This record gives sequence, structure tokens and C-alpha cells, in this order.
Amino acid sequence: MPDRFAFPSRRLLLSGLAMTTLLLGIATAPQLAAAGTDPLPSWNAGAVKSAIVSFVERVTEEGSPHFVAPDDRIATFDNDGTLWSEQPFYFQLAFALDRIREQAKADPALAEKEPYKSVLSGDPENLAVLGEKGLAQILALTHAGLTVEAFDAQVRAWLASARHPRFDRPYTDLVFQPMLELLAYLRANGFKTYVVSGGGIDFMRPWMLDVYGIPPEQIIGSSGKTAFRIDGDKPVIEKLPEVEFVDDGPGKPVGINRFIGRRPIFAAGNSDGDLQMLQWATLGEGERLALIVHHTDAEREWAYDRASHVGRLDKALDEAGKRDWQVVDMKNDWKTVFSFE
Amino acid sequence: MPDRFAFPSRRLLLSGLAMTTLLLGIATAPQLAAAGTDPLPSWNAGAVKSAIVSFVERVTEEGSPHFVAPDDRIATFDNDGTLWSEQPFYFQLAFALDRIREQAKADPALAEKEPYKSVLSGDPENLAVLGEKGLAQILALTHAGLTVEAFDAQVRAWLASARHPRFDRPYTDLVFQPMLELLAYLRANGFKTYVVSGGGIDFMRPWMLDVYGIPPEQIIGSSGKTAFRIDGDKPVIEKLPEVEFVDDGPGKPVGINRFIGRRPIFAAGNSDGDLQMLQWATLGEGERLALIVHHTDAEREWAYDRASHVGRLDKALDEAGKRDWQVVDMKNDWKTVFSFE
Repeated sequence: MPDRFAFPSRRLLLSGLAMTTLLLGIATAPQLAAAGTDPLPSWNAGAVKSAIVSFVERVTEEGSPHFVAPDDRIATFDNDGTLWSEQPFYFQLAFALDRIREQAKADPALAEKEPYKSVLSGDPENLAVLGEKGLAQILALTHAGLTVEAFDAQVRAWLASARHPRFDRPYTDLVFQPMLELLAYLRANGFKTYVVSGGGIDFMRPWMLDVYGIPPEQIIGSSGKTAFRIDGDKPVIEKLPEVEFVDDGPGKPVGINRFIGRRPIFAAGNSDGDLQMLQWATLGEGERLALIVHHTDAEREWAYDRASHVGRLDKALDEAGKRDWQVVDMKNDWKTVFSFE
Repeated sequence: MPDRFAFPSRRLLLSGLAMTTLLLGIATAPQLAAAGTDPLPSWNAGAVKSAIVSFVERVTEEGSPHFVAPDDRIATFDNDGTLWSEQPFYFQLAFALDRIREQAKADPALAEKEPYKSVLSGDPENLAVLGEKGLAQILALTHAGLTVEAFDAQVRAWLASARHPRFDRPYTDLVFQPMLELLAYLRANGFKTYVVSGGGIDFMRPWMLDVYGIPPEQIIGSSGKTAFRIDGDKPVIEKLPEVEFVDDGPGKPVGINRFIGRRPIFAAGNSDGDLQMLQWATLGEGERLALIVHHTDAEREWAYDRASHVGRLDKALDEAGKRDWQVVDMKNDWKTVFSFE
């Protein structure tokens, strides 16, 4: 179980393209704030909240020069570190490690082979030894060789039982209440909300409709190749151990263009992996807004930025200063972080 | 101009994966049938029309065991030969050849080089000599090396001026009136309608909202790789001369799974390239409907099936007989083919 597994080098875990195909966790229903006069009750009054509300009012005011037709109100959100937590490591990695342990349990002969041996030992040094190649192996062993349908079932089962090591709660309890309110607020104002994450698309789709109100067709993520075949008289799509698309960094605008075919006018992220998405959304004509979630609250959540190996926020923080991007100071801007507080 | 260009071997044009990245044409606004009591006025009464109406009524009847929640009412449509014509060759190829001619006009030195020489000569034999490699070259020369934005503008400009050689009308006049009515009927009943075409995604997106009422984010097609970069202070996405995804045959369910993440309950196609999409949509639990447009009307449109090099319909026609798939006999089932008749 993940809470008993002391996890190793974060730097290792974050490095390389292989890791960008990792991400995320899951679980229960979101608690949206009761509809009052304030659509964003978990946000403290301040510059960021004002900027959000003012932006939404401008683009929805008919007859105004800032008006944006509902069809063009596209909002894209990173997931890890933006809509839910990403510490001590991406939740999707916790899922992958649990799957490795389950596989070894079902076939004890595996325990002597890598990467099983290192994962089972729970020894950070051993996992570090695996390197990128070992992590790519872990991904292939846990995210391929089964149908999309079977993988969906595994993700759901894992989310129903796994607990986050620090909070001892389902991973999907670690979604940010203020961001749920923001998603709902934008949708109530005619926006189409998308997730654009480096996380695996098949890992996100089983739960985001319940948790974020975002349907499968509005989720963009990293993916492996898949193949269609008829199995008996049943058509299946199988996940192959080959990377298809890495939805991170410059891959984010590429993914947005491929899946949506329109430029967002709103984008939210929290790390340098979101930089190009924020540029794609904001460097253009008309009203546009970019938001960066800055993790500044070690007490309620975590505090990290330029030096972090998970969710490093460095270049994008510099660029936020030059552009008119809104930086959310989690500690001061958010009244509530998690709904269970 | 395409009407003066006698086009060559259809077999050549159809062969190979390279050609599946080709497809389509464009143009004006659809004429949807006046809303009367009959939602499908251009369809003659008969088994196919009854099957469509009965299917829609069953899945939308609340409390019925056949009821399908609106979120799961996904309908996917092939484009070439299903929503508009595809003869004498894919309209997207007419676009590509016109672009080749324009490029040679702008830079006369090109005229001595292949594939320009053969295209400019308009001699079927020369084009046949080009083979698949030459056609892939034509695609790369006309569909890459520019931004998505610039390509969009070229497609729009071409559609505004190009004329179909047989009908001397904009290519987008060659959309099937009964299918426009079907799209509108499904949407009026809570369906989300998608195009799933072997045609180029960037070639389809500029015009399908106007012509079919289908927005860019509901268009799935073949694609080349793209790259994001900042040009000065302007973010751009550039089209690269490398195939990314071929949305044909087994690629169609793969594309549907990747973009939509749900299985359609309705699918329409017209050729063997749609077989796997029709299987994916229909071989499952619950109410499902597959439709095949059979081109049987040489007078109003074209008549072709098993022996055709464009839109060959052979295996899928056999399978339609075994499954409960509806085969549209264009000549007898459609009162009107084109709105301009």
C-alpha cells in the first residue's frame, strides 16, 4: 500500500519524457460550494479573485467590445498541482507501484525480477538504480497489455481503496475546493472546461466527470498507442507499450490544437510544464486570462516552486511577472484548500 | 482549375496509407429542411427511415429499458461519401493539386521539378508515374511547412473559389441533404455528432461548423505532426511533413477512443474504411444503429461499390447483411440528394 512505501528520489521520478506519461489519482464526488451570491466562496477577496470575476464579466457582457461568443469560451486546466495535489509524487505513480505489487502477488516468480524486486523492497536506493528505463518499464507493465476497458476498471478499483500517505484519504479528496468552484463558475458562464495534463489520458477519464464535472471528451493527456481488434465477436481496444503522445510543455498547445482546434481564452497551470499552454492561451487578441497556482502553504498542502522536482515552477513564474498572469498565493488567496478541512 | 484537369488513375489515388491522409472539400451554409412534423423530409418512407426514427425514439424514451442518457448519445459520421460526395476523387486531393499549381505559378522554376511537372502537364500517365511516393510528396508540399492558421486561410480561400468539375458548383454544395437532416435530427434529440474521417483534420475544421453544424472539437481526422513555437511574441503551431495519425479502417475506433473516450451508439459510413468504426459502435450492449450510405444513383450522384477505387464498399456490405446494419439505397431512399437539385 502506498502509505507504507517510503518513496525515493523525486528528481528521478520527474526526469524525462517517460515520466510525463505518468500522473494523477482518483475518487469521490466534488463538493461544490452552495450557490450564494459569491460564486467563489473559497477564494479570499483580493487581486486574483477580482481578476477572475472581472474577466468573466467582460467576456460575457453582450454588446461589449470584450464579448466572446460562448463557442469560443474555451478554458484549459492542468491537473496535477492545479486541480489536485501532486506530492509527495504524482498520484498516477502511486497507482503504478500498487499495480506492480499486485502483479507480483499474483505471480510470485516476478518478485525476483526487475523492476518488481526493487519496487517490492521499497528501498529508495534500489528504485533509483532503476533509472528512467526502469520507470518506463513500470509504466509499460502497468499501463499496457490490457484493454482500455480493463484498465478503466483497475483505475476505479484502485481509487476506491487507495489512500494518500499524508492525509489517509482517497486521492480524489485531494482536489482543490477553490478550483472546483472556478470550474463550475466558468461553466455557468458558458465556458467549455478542459483538462490538459501530462498525466495519462486513460488514467484520468474514469473519474473526472464525477470529480470535476469534466466528461471524457474534454480530457487531453499523454497517451500510449492503442490497437483495435475483434476478440471473438467483441470489439476491443488494447493499450500497447509504446508512447503515442506526451502532453507536456510544448506538447500542451499541440494537444489543445489537435483535440480542440480552437485557442483557449483561459488557462490555468502550476508548473513550467504549463508555460507553453499559458502562452498559447494568452498571447493573442482579445480578453484572455492565465492563472498559476503557486504552492505556498506547507501547512494545509505543500510549499514548493523553483527548486522542486515535482511541479517545478521557475520559468513560468518569471514569465507571469512579465505578462499579466495571475499568480494564486495558495496560503493567502484560498480560504479553503480541501473540502474536508 | 480542377475542372480543366483531367484526373488519372483512381486506383493509384486510393492506394496506400499516404492517401488516407488526403480527403475532403468545402463551402457554404447547409439548407436544413423546414421543421415540419417530419424531421427527415428528404428521406422516402421505408425500412431505413423507419429504423432511424424508431432507434431515436427508443433511446430517448425516459423510463424505457432502451433509454440512453444524453451524455452517452454519441454519433459518429464518416465524411467522404457519407456526408458529401467523393467522386471523381477525394475533394481534398483537388485542393492539393490546386495548391501545387499555385506554388508553381509563384515560383516558375518549380515547373521543371517533380511532382510539379507531372501535375502541371495534367497528363494522367505522368501522375501515375509519381506513384505513392509522389502523392506523399504532394501532400507534404501542400499540407506542411506552414502554420495551422495559414493553412486554415488557404482552405477557406480555395473553397470560396474552386468548383466541382461535374456540377460546376462549390464543393460544399455537394453535401447530402438527407444527411444534414439526420445530423440535425440526432442533435435535436440530445446526440453529440462527430465527424470521424480519413480526411485531414486541418482540412475539415475550417468549414464543418458552417456546413454541418459540427464544431472543430467534434472533428476527428488524419493528421500530420505539428510543433509549437514562439515567433517573435506570437505563438504559432506549424504543420510538419510527417504523418501523425491515420484515421481510417482500424484507426477510426482508435481515434474515437482517443478523442471521445466513449463508444458511439450510432455510426454512419459508406466504405470498407468505415467497417471497424461500425463494429465498434454496434457490437455491444444496448440499442445501437449503424448506417451505410450505398451509392446507387448514377444520375443524381454516382453509383459504385465493390469494384470502386474510391470509397470501395465490399466487406462492409457483406457484414451489413449479417448484422442488423441499415443500408441506404441512395436512389430509392433519398427524395433529394443535393439541396440545389
